[in-house]
Amino acid sequence: MTAVLPRAVDLNADLGEGFGAYRMGDDAALLDVVTSANVACGLHAGDPEIMAETFRLAKAGGVTVGAHPGFPDLWGFGRRVLPYSAGEIERLVAYQIGAAAALSALAGHPIAYVKLHGALANLAVVDPDVAAASVRAIKAVDASLACLAIAHGKQERLARDAGLHTYSEVYADRGYQDDGSLMPRNRPGAFIHDPAEAVERACRMVEAGEIVSVGGKTLPTSVDSICVHGDSPTAVVTARLLAERLAAEGVAFAPFAGKP
Amino acid sequence: MTAVLPRAVDLNADLGEGFGAYRMGDDAALLDVVTSANVACGLHAGDPEIMAETFRLAKAGGVTVGAHPGFPDLWGFGRRVLPYSAGEIERLVAYQIGAAAALSALAGHPIAYVKLHGALANLAVVDPDVAAASVRAIKAVDASLACLAIAHGKQERLARDAGLHTYSEVYADRGYQDDGSLMPRNRPGAFIHDPAEAVERACRMVEAGEIVSVGGKTLPTSVDSICVHGDSPTAVVTARLLAERLAAEGVAFAPFAGKP
Amino acid sequence: MTAVLPRAVDLNADLGEGFGAYRMGDDAALLDVVTSANVACGLHAGDPEIMAETFRLAKAGGVTVGAHPGFPDLWGFGRRVLPYSAGEIERLVAYQIGAAAALSALAGHPIAYVKLHGALANLAVVDPDVAAASVRAIKAVDASLACLAIAHGKQERLARDAGLHTYSEVYADRGYQDDGSLMPRNRPGAFIHDPAEAVERACRMVEAGEIVSVGGKTLPTSVDSICVHGDSPTAVVTARLLAERLAAEGVAFAPFAGKP
Amino acid sequence: MTAVLPRAVDLNADLGEGFGAYRMGDDAALLDVVTSANVACGLHAGDPEIMAETFRLAKAGGVTVGAHPGFPDLWGFGRRVLPYSAGEIERLVAYQIGAAAALSALAGHPIAYVKLHGALANLAVVDPDVAAASVRAIKAVDASLACLAIAHGKQERLARDAGLHTYSEVYADRGYQDDGSLMPRNRPGAFIHDPAEAVERACRMVEAGEIVSVGGKTLPTSVDSICVHGDSPTAVVTARLLAERLAAEGVAFAPFAGKP
Repeated sequence: MTAVLPRAVDLNADLGEGFGAYRMGDDAALLDVVTSANVACGLHAGDPEIMAETFRLAKAGGVTVGAHPGFPDLWGFGRRVLPYSAGEIERLVAYQIGAAAALSALAGHPIAYVKLHGALANLAVVDPDVAAASVRAIKAVDASLACLAIAHGKQERLARDAGLHTYSEVYADRGYQDDGSLMPRNRPGAFIHDPAEAVERACRMVEAGEIVSVGGKTLPTSVDSICVHGDSPTAVVTARLLAERLAAEGVAFAPFAGKP
Repeated sequence: MTAVLPRAVDLNADLGEGFGAYRMGDDAALLDVVTSANVACGLHAGDPEIMAETFRLAKAGGVTVGAHPGFPDLWGFGRRVLPYSAGEIERLVAYQIGAAAALSALAGHPIAYVKLHGALANLAVVDPDVAAASVRAIKAVDASLACLAIAHGKQERLARDAGLHTYSEVYADRGYQDDGSLMPRNRPGAFIHDPAEAVERACRMVEAGEIVSVGGKTLPTSVDSICVHGDSPTAVVTARLLAERLAAEGVAFAPFAGKP
Repeated sequence: MTAVLPRAVDLNADLGEGFGAYRMGDDAALLDVVTSANVACGLHAGDPEIMAETFRLAKAGGVTVGAHPGFPDLWGFGRRVLPYSAGEIERLVAYQIGAAAALSALAGHPIAYVKLHGALANLAVVDPDVAAASVRAIKAVDASLACLAIAHGKQERLARDAGLHTYSEVYADRGYQDDGSLMPRNRPGAFIHDPAEAVERACRMVEAGEIVSVGGKTLPTSVDSICVHGDSPTAVVTARLLAERLAAEGVAFAPFAGKP
Repeated sequence: MTAVLPRAVDLNADLGEGFGAYRMGDDAALLDVVTSANVACGLHAGDPEIMAETFRLAKAGGVTVGAHPGFPDLWGFGRRVLPYSAGEIERLVAYQIGAAAALSALAGHPIAYVKLHGALANLAVVDPDVAAASVRAIKAVDASLACLAIAHGKQERLARDAGLHTYSEVYADRGYQDDGSLMPRNRPGAFIHDPAEAVERACRMVEAGEIVSVGGKTLPTSVDSICVHGDSPTAVVTARLLAERLAAEGVAFAPFAGKP
């Protein structure tokens, strides 16, 4: 199979992950390089002030915005699987999308998509009930919102089947397991700390349309967006290197949302 | 001036004011009598489960629903004025409207209006900056939402001036100060505990189009809705008596939202 | 083996389980019948105001008080197992014991024991790491505090081995599994709803010194205290019937704490 | 009156002010220079994990520790005056002291003092009811705990009158009003941003035993401790410069707690 090099790919990062006086990551620097910003909705991070400010800055920087719902777990930063049923998750996701839609409307820069956060996103890769619950929530709140799903997961397929505009993302700085799910954060190979290596991996995924797992397995995938982690110290460096490298190969950065 | 008896008036109450395993008020009984339900949005009371269930029950009972934003103060039940700026209140109100809009959409019974809760509602009676902030939030999130405002307050006028569908409510079971604001809860005359007396007062307000303050002052007002307090033990009794009494005089209960 | 009828047994219930304006259970009625009150510490229920008031009322009623730490889960009322490590649980339990010790000192009625709440208590029945963590927390904060443990669980043994004054409790209104752990709340036989049946079971456990599981298995146990659930509508009735029945057999109610 | 140069003065800073994944200030660097660490107790900042870790690091570094209670306001970082009564504040302060006492005991490094945080500390400077409430809380929980009070405030006097070991602190990096209270954070002169200037001011306060207000007024005071703000970017630089400068004048840094 000959890979057809895409002409453009999206670069997304999690933003607005502070709370009150706390800050997480370098939002200003990331907004200079990403094309899509996943905005925390107040339950695992974020608050109405930070959300409003992040939407305002993203608008000024021409960055597309999406709702980034997670488990209601400020202490755990949304990185722990909490014991909620699929039905409860459906309501939690709808709540957060609605809140983000409202604050982005207030900022004059409406959200265009939904991407799940942290442990909830990983759960929607492997658990079809949770994946379906998240898809129902998006569709009920605003069926025109796109779904940005982790490539190769349950949510990606179910969102597409449900008729949502569905886009697939890969991680530049995270290792994959053989089944296409992310290596858990407490396991070897979970993170790619070297920006150069992260860039190489991301380029390969974009150009070849495939993921290589930590165990060496190759999984074909479509790549609409690449995620860099806003709270990683090397996120901005990685993002900049990646932009340069892809530009050199004729691949531009552009938001996935609105793509045909 | 000859008062023209209205043919219909709305009866509203605060519902869905529990949190997790906690419950407040007798929602099922109130849903049998009210025509509009103000649904708490998760910051002073309520959570996504309770919100979804309240929207579902209201739909089944044919009761119109509205968002009921308050201060983010679960411990204080939204009854304390917290030190938020008008701008912060604008974002807090937008956040809550959005969350309620999403969960009501999920329930297939979209919110039709916004009514502020507790200390925030009382603040919007007297503070024009807070009133204006709440009006901006409603308008930005969904300009087709009605505003249910306390009669004679700043919000009532500003919402009308801003072009929102604006309706005025009076309180059957609360005393008024001479300036039209509610008597604070810790002051004599704040509550009308006797249902019969509450009914008399409400009828007079509806029929004469005027409020009588604790101090005896008469303030002309339009009355689109009467509020009974869901967390009061006599709320349901008062609501039933009021329905009978008004029916006897040819005044029906009907939701204000959607009225011409 | 001939069972020796105890001359006295303790009756304990969970109290102070409200939060802010919310209330759970009929604390005043329970304080009339129980001899030990487990006081929620603010993380799954309770707040400093409710804690202080509960300690004050217990002092006035001559009821012994204990700290009742649970998972930090107000929404879930401490009834969900949350993903905390044993070390994190050790710190969470210490935090709550300290807070309860302080407020009980302020009320002039110091706590005499610690009993874990809900999902945390059940986890300490089966998980030795969690049981050991809770024992370390009690011992480090105040080694003179007694440990009230679910009969037949890991915590009971580890607390005793660690040299804590350790007492064993059984549940009048809950069914047991064959291994001595409580039947989960969502399973058949979890609750004994009939007060008369609960009283019969409790008497048998006290008099015979044995638990009978839902599956019919008999497990010998010492019974220092019987628990009734404060949030159950029949708790007060059950407690009163039990007091009468045991009195008729010459068994008094008396706090376990301070027993030789 | 001839000022007698003290042989030693304490240097204190707020530590452990993160929450979950969030961090605030450079605790490790501050622990290298301060002699007393005020440890947040979980309501305006801090959590059991961070508290335990801060107590552990302080023990390893030979730094005395104290409880640092504040308003229950994670979002506002304890910097807003919230509408709690003096009685409610008494319970809130007791709760936090107890929690800190427990976790410091678990770490084998018990707290030696209590210092109020942020808006609560400033309120206790001017409001005698709040000051008295905080003193009652300290005394009831553990009368052997010292009180570290802002020099010239109500709490300083009331704590001394109540028989608590009471010590007075001044701020190296904050401006004072003519009445001895701190200039509010949103007013000109609130902060001394230049470390050299902060050092000069602190030395003068220590050596002359007097505060000079922003308006030029001189207020005599005893100075047992100097506070630098952990969350300020220049805190560590200021603390180091101050240590050098005082050492050059023969004044050592040493914890106030335990002083005769």
